[in-house]
Amino acid sequence: MASVFTKIINGDIPSFKVAEDAQHYAFLDINPMMKGHVLVVPKVEVDYIFDLEDKIIAELNVFAKRVALAMEQVLPCKRVGMMVIGTEVPHAHIHLLPFTEEAQFDITRPRLEIKKEEMQSIAEQILLAFLQA
Amino acid sequence: MASVFTKIINGDIPSFKVAEDAQHYAFLDINPMMKGHVLVVPKVEVDYIFDLEDKIIAELNVFAKRVALAMEQVLPCKRVGMMVIGTEVPHAHIHLLPFTEEAQFDITRPRLEIKKEEMQSIAEQILLAFLQA
Repeated sequence: MASVFTKIINGDIPSFKVAEDAQHYAFLDINPMMKGHVLVVPKVEVDYIFDLEDKIIAELNVFAKRVALAMEQVLPCKRVGMMVIGTEVPHAHIHLLPFTEEAQFDITRPRLEIKKEEMQSIAEQILLAFLQA
Repeated sequence: MASVFTKIINGDIPSFKVAEDAQHYAFLDINPMMKGHVLVVPKVEVDYIFDLEDKIIAELNVFAKRVALAMEQVLPCKRVGMMVIGTEVPHAHIHLLPFTEEAQFDITRPRLEIKKEEMQSIAEQILLAFLQA
């Protein structure tokens, strides 16, 4: 059965898309640790990130870099950080985290609730910056 | 001035090395979030990971994957996760985190104190698995 991320990539589940190319898709986490929290996924559905072939893991990270640089342009943050845990959904994914303080790197903190309109606005700004880079 | 990681790479500061190649160096974090917590650094000294050239960020992540697969062979863990924050030391680095529970992804938790002999043993086991892969 297709993973929830494959359904998102295929448009069967709606998402706030922030970037896409032939091999990758990036969208806002709907349970964000911080404002502008993005998930980057390869379109190929592999559970564990370190099972990805070298070429795919290399390209995924170059794509994630492009997304992170776009995020930085439009989100107020110290930097964009990364996290990979991977046990939430069996489809490899990178969390891109535009943090303002290091203590935000804490999976146990309550997630933010952000209105749909603001999520849409954040996603559009990142997508525009990504496309213009 | 050379970063603390460049001093470690050059051997001016001792470290528990777990892997190395021409462009990269990996060693145990001396303030580990969990047992077997590894730092992976490119030998080129660049502060912010997303300022690395595409080729370097790609190769860094392929190297990190090789280290993670070696870690998994010798450390009791659910998986190896990743974290990049980057503000602690101005030299890009990836945390490789062999976690047993997701709640360990919390930068605010007290770090472990592990005896030198055990750190040495962990490092040697990972290095051996890395070299034999």
